[in-house]
Amino acid sequence: MAAEVETETAQRVKRLERKGIVPGLATVLVGENPASQMYIRLKHSACNRVGIRSENVVLPERSSEEDLIERIMELNGRADVNGILLQLPLPGGLSPQRAMMSILPEKDVDGFHPVNMGALLLGAERLVPCTPRGIIYALERLGKKLEGAEAVIVGHSNVVGKPLAAMLLNRNATVQVCHVFTRDLAEHTRDAEILVVAAGVPALIKKDMVRPGAVVFDVGINRVGDRTVGDVDFEAVKDVASAITPVPGGVGPLTVAMLLSQTVSAAESQAALI
Amino acid sequence: MAAEVETETAQRVKRLERKGIVPGLATVLVGENPASQMYIRLKHSACNRVGIRSENVVLPERSSEEDLIERIMELNGRADVNGILLQLPLPGGLSPQRAMMSILPEKDVDGFHPVNMGALLLGAERLVPCTPRGIIYALERLGKKLEGAEAVIVGHSNVVGKPLAAMLLNRNATVQVCHVFTRDLAEHTRDAEILVVAAGVPALIKKDMVRPGAVVFDVGINRVGDRTVGDVDFEAVKDVASAITPVPGGVGPLTVAMLLSQTVSAAESQAALI
Repeated sequence: MAAEVETETAQRVKRLERKGIVPGLATVLVGENPASQMYIRLKHSACNRVGIRSENVVLPERSSEEDLIERIMELNGRADVNGILLQLPLPGGLSPQRAMMSILPEKDVDGFHPVNMGALLLGAERLVPCTPRGIIYALERLGKKLEGAEAVIVGHSNVVGKPLAAMLLNRNATVQVCHVFTRDLAEHTRDAEILVVAAGVPALIKKDMVRPGAVVFDVGINRVGDRTVGDVDFEAVKDVASAITPVPGGVGPLTVAMLLSQTVSAAESQAALI
Repeated sequence: MAAEVETETAQRVKRLERKGIVPGLATVLVGENPASQMYIRLKHSACNRVGIRSENVVLPERSSEEDLIERIMELNGRADVNGILLQLPLPGGLSPQRAMMSILPEKDVDGFHPVNMGALLLGAERLVPCTPRGIIYALERLGKKLEGAEAVIVGHSNVVGKPLAAMLLNRNATVQVCHVFTRDLAEHTRDAEILVVAAGVPALIKKDMVRPGAVVFDVGINRVGDRTVGDVDFEAVKDVASAITPVPGGVGPLTVAMLLSQTVSAAESQAALI
C-alpha cells in the first residue's frame, strides 16, 4: 500500500511539474539525536523517490526557542517550501508547543498544529497526523466498512490515539480508547473488529486478547535486545487476525507515504492560491 | 453546583471590578429563531446575576456571511467585549464554520474555534465547549476518580461527544463513544461507571442499560407533547444510578454557569496582557 501511495504521489508531482511547480519539504532537526537523524534520512530518501525537493535545516543542540521559531518563520515565508516538518523530540528545555504553533497551518504536513487538530476534531480534516491517516487509508483500501464498526485503540497519545479516535468517529465507527490506566485491557480489546495498538510495550497484545477476524495495526516500535518488535505478539496473533501489520515494515512505511502525499497536497493547495 | 459556580464567578467579577474592569459578553444572534431567542435571554439574565455586562447583537435573517463576519470583527476589536458567543444554529444558507473562525480565539467563550478545539485535543485545554466542561466540573466536584474510570458517551457531536471524549482521555479515563451507528448500544452502556447521553432521542437509555452505581449525565432536551424530557428514562434509571441529572434543570444550568466562568477567565487573561 505504501508503494501504491508513493506511485500516485509521484504522478501528482509530475502534474505539478508541468505547471512549473516542484513541491518542497523542509525538515527541521535540533541537535544530534541518532534516531531522529535516521528518521530524517528515511523521509528525505522517500521524498527523493517521488520527486519532492527536500532540504534539512539543522540547528545546534543548545538552540533557543527564539532561534528555532525564527528559522521556522523563514521557511513559512519561502514559496518553494510547501511543507515544514519539525522532527520530535526536541532536546531538553525546548518545548515543542510554541514551535509547532509557529508553523504556518497550511505548511504543517505533520498535522500537529492546533488549528489542524481542531479542524480534525470538528470533522473538517485537512492536514492530519500521518500515522492515523495511514491507518484510515489502509482500512478504506481493504474495503473495511467503518460505519458502525467496533474500533479499539490502545494508547491515547497526541500523535496517534487521540487524533485517530476522532478520525474514526468522523467516519461513524464506534470507538473505545484504552491506555496504561485502563483496568481490564483484554475486556476492551476483545470487542475490536479494528484494533490499533500504539502503547510502546513489547508483546502487550496476546492471542487471547484479539477477536477472531480482527484487523490489527501495530504502531509500536520497541527495541528488545538487538531486535525491533511491535506491541503485538505477531507470531501468535497472526493466526486469529484477518489482517495484521508487521513491525518493522508495516505502519512505518505507510506513515512516510502519507507525509509525501500531504506535502504534495499542501503544494497543490498553495498553487491553487496563486 | 451551578449556583456554586455562579457565586465563585461573581466573586471573580468583583476582583476584576476593583481593577476597574467590568467583564463583557456579546452574544450574536442571526434571525428570529424562538428557541435561540430564549437561550440568549437565559444567558443574558445569568450574566446579570454575576455582574457580567452583556449585550446582544441581532442581525436580520437574510444577512450575508460578510455582514456577520464584519460584526464579529468589530466585537473582536472592542476592549470592553471579553467574550463573543455566536448563537447556533444559523439560518439556512449561512455556514457557521467561517463565522466561528473569525472570532478571536481568546474571546471564543463557547470553545468552538478550531484552535481552541485543537488545544483541547492536544491536552492543553483553554476555552473549551461549556457542556463538556460542566460535566468534568461535576465529576470532579463529586469526587469521582477519573483516572482509569470506565466512561461511555452516547453521541459524537462536535459540541458534546467528541470534545468530552478528548477531555476524559486527557484525565486518563478509558473512553467509549457510541452513536446512532453503534450496533449494540446496551453492550457498551452497561460498562459505564460514567455515562453521558447526548443523542437527542427521548428515553433512549432504559434501566437495564445502566450499570448499578453509575453516574449518569443526561444532555438530551426533547419535546414530547407539552413536556421537556431527556434521553434517559429518569424515573427508572434513578433507582440504579448513584447520581443522575434531571431534564430540565440538570446539565443546562451547569452549561450556562461554565459560560459565565469562561467569560470571566477570558477577561482575566485579557487584563493580564495589558
